Amino acid sequence: MATSMPCSPLAPAGFPNLPVIPGVKFATVAAGIKYQGRTDVMLAVMDPGTAVAGVFTQSSTRAAPVLDCQTKLGGATDSGAAILVNSGNANAFTGHYGQDSVAEITRSLGDVINIPVSRIFTASTGVIGEPLPHARITDRLEVLAAGLQSDTIKSAAQAIMTTDTYAKGAGAQVQVGEKTVSIAGFAKGSGMIAPDMATMLVYIFTDAKIEQSALQALLVTQANTTFNCITVDSDTSTSDSLMVCATGASGVDVTGDSTFAEALHGVMLDLAHQVVRDGEGATKFVEIRVTGAVSDADAKTHGLSIANSPLVKTAIAGEDPNWGRVVMAIGKSGAAADRDLLSIWFGDVLVADKGWISPDYREEDAAAHMKGQELVIAVDLGLGDGKATVWTCDLTHGYIDINADYRS
Amino acid sequence: MATSMPCSPLAPAGFPNLPVIPGVKFATVAAGIKYQGRTDVMLAVMDPGTAVAGVFTQSSTRAAPVLDCQTKLGGATDSGAAILVNSGNANAFTGHYGQDSVAEITRSLGDVINIPVSRIFTASTGVIGEPLPHARITDRLEVLAAGLQSDTIKSAAQAIMTTDTYAKGAGAQVQVGEKTVSIAGFAKGSGMIAPDMATMLVYIFTDAKIEQSALQALLVTQANTTFNCITVDSDTSTSDSLMVCATGASGVDVTGDSTFAEALHGVMLDLAHQVVRDGEGATKFVEIRVTGAVSDADAKTHGLSIANSPLVKTAIAGEDPNWGRVVMAIGKSGAAADRDLLSIWFGDVLVADKGWISPDYREEDAAAHMKGQELVIAVDLGLGDGKATVWTCDLTHGYIDINADYRS
Repeated sequence: MATSMPCSPLAPAGFPNLPVIPGVKFATVAAGIKYQGRTDVMLAVMDPGTAVAGVFTQSSTRAAPVLDCQTKLGGATDSGAAILVNSGNANAFTGHYGQDSVAEITRSLGDVINIPVSRIFTASTGVIGEPLPHARITDRLEVLAAGLQSDTIKSAAQAIMTTDTYAKGAGAQVQVGEKTVSIAGFAKGSGMIAPDMATMLVYIFTDAKIEQSALQALLVTQANTTFNCITVDSDTSTSDSLMVCATGASGVDVTGDSTFAEALHGVMLDLAHQVVRDGEGATKFVEIRVTGAVSDADAKTHGLSIANSPLVKTAIAGEDPNWGRVVMAIGKSGAAADRDLLSIWFGDVLVADKGWISPDYREEDAAAHMKGQELVIAVDLGLGDGKATVWTCDLTHGYIDINADYRS
Repeated sequence: MATSMPCSPLAPAGFPNLPVIPGVKFATVAAGIKYQGRTDVMLAVMDPGTAVAGVFTQSSTRAAPVLDCQTKLGGATDSGAAILVNSGNANAFTGHYGQDSVAEITRSLGDVINIPVSRIFTASTGVIGEPLPHARITDRLEVLAAGLQSDTIKSAAQAIMTTDTYAKGAGAQVQVGEKTVSIAGFAKGSGMIAPDMATMLVYIFTDAKIEQSALQALLVTQANTTFNCITVDSDTSTSDSLMVCATGASGVDVTGDSTFAEALHGVMLDLAHQVVRDGEGATKFVEIRVTGAVSDADAKTHGLSIANSPLVKTAIAGEDPNWGRVVMAIGKSGAAADRDLLSIWFGDVLVADKGWISPDYREEDAAAHMKGQELVIAVDLGLGDGKATVWTCDLTHGYIDINADYRS
């Protein structure tokens, strides 16, 4: 479990000081779903008028809470809204019982906080295939509701952790016109770790004012270059969820505002990087920059093929500037490439120049870069203007240790 | 290197006794391309009339010898034919110099054995990005040609090994009508292992009589359910080559003959399994049977998604019947699945029954199956008649040891 794992060597110094978001309150409780001696339920309640956007796992075996959330996006915003998340049990692969649990929790919570069920979103993360003991949650809803506070986002981040080795938060404050808009969010996830599927969950809150449809479009766009550009082990949870809630309490309309879009992007990228930095067994944080592809989509395909290759990831773990494996990963990706136009850099060191090893290349230069904790692998395909950047970590004995352990 | 690695625990008892194939002779030599104290060049020469079929890596960065072979399939068969393979250097990512090496080797060999260049096929396997010192090969061609013998296929199999821990051979003899047809082949490959890309190379010989176009079609069909259904680590070499040569010396026309097709399939499957059994770090041989898919193609997509999932592979290494990870791998595959129709078995043990854990499931039963060296994971999707079987191995500390080592 998380509590017994040492903190990732790539972790940030600590949980950041995040701005309080007017119109949002948090509460947590220890419901004893599976874990003992820690909080395991998080409730966030937003004021009426809040726009809620979300993107979710594309898995065809997605869990009941995900299916429920997907039906609720885009509804009327005149009432309040809420998000309830439990850790310890994923309520995944639990058949119709899973849907019953979601219905029971949302109905009960709606009664307690006087918000329609259609505006109550849930997520569950933890062991799969076991029925969620939802009564342990519904029994604590009054206590949860009584504890709602605006400045307890760190506690919220901690309550949803499973095998994470640290709580992940990020925020920003930006000037839009004369006024300040705040963003604060948190995430959990660290690859998909034994004994559970370590679902990635991300919740971001802002006091910006924006229509749901515009917020949804913005979220999809920003996810494409942040959370959809990270990979730990190529495995995708059945429960991944990313939601953004805009309360509008600042009164600042950010529709189409690039400053706000950039700030949201920054918060999302920060959280996405923190998930990679907590990748199981990770000892290196790796940025893979692909340029010169036929299209941005092709560049991303190449980048993810490199980032997901076990041979590339083990070479990184071994601090080996093994550019042949990068060539291999490009070749197998399915996206367009021309062997004789390929150039590859490790850090600033040009390794391969248009299809062959650079005449100036000295392996000790690239090897020196590989000894760092933050690595850059750059690839230019020489074909067009398409580009993408993806992030991953190395594949180490630590990953095997964590994932080959027998479930306790 | 191979010589320092202990033999895989999944290796067969020894190299099999293979039938001699009339019309084929083999020779090997130690050319000192990279390795010392062992053979590193293999030559096979076939009589006039031999049909040569081949399938090759789909990599967009494939090596020069592969590109050369692909242009030569389907030519006239009135002259003899030859295959020359070296180990120690892959002649991959070597720019135009690589093509020059291929041209030099095939031209010189053609002169020595009096066979047109258009009928001379080559492959190279070993380190990449270094120019192939082809003069070391061309200097030994007279010696090679002088040593051609019909009963030295095991030596041929040994000469092309790189990081393999054992030589891989398989054969069959079948009655077609009143006569006997023989098949014998060998393979190298064991995933893609440091310090090189451990290309998979397969050469199969038979005295059956068959037109090249029919042999090519048969090879493509059989590859689809054998070599294209195995995976060690999802990484694809830039040099993978599979060739079948039919000398016709038996005089038995096998065109459209199902007995011959089955025998060839058996030899190919045997060799494919031996490659998986030599997967780096492998301690378990895993058969994944997928049924009930919408199509055979969908079944294979699901099977390979399970077989390539690091989380499934590490669970197998840990002898953990972690069926949730199988659900996850099905969900992420992109092929059609319905969570609530899925059933999963570990060996004979029904684990998940139509979307939820089986009421009779006892984890100790599945755990007992996982302790074996030969495992079966079966999945029924409940959607249609599509089915496929794929084979893989587990992901262990041994894989990390082998692949994260700094290149020597």
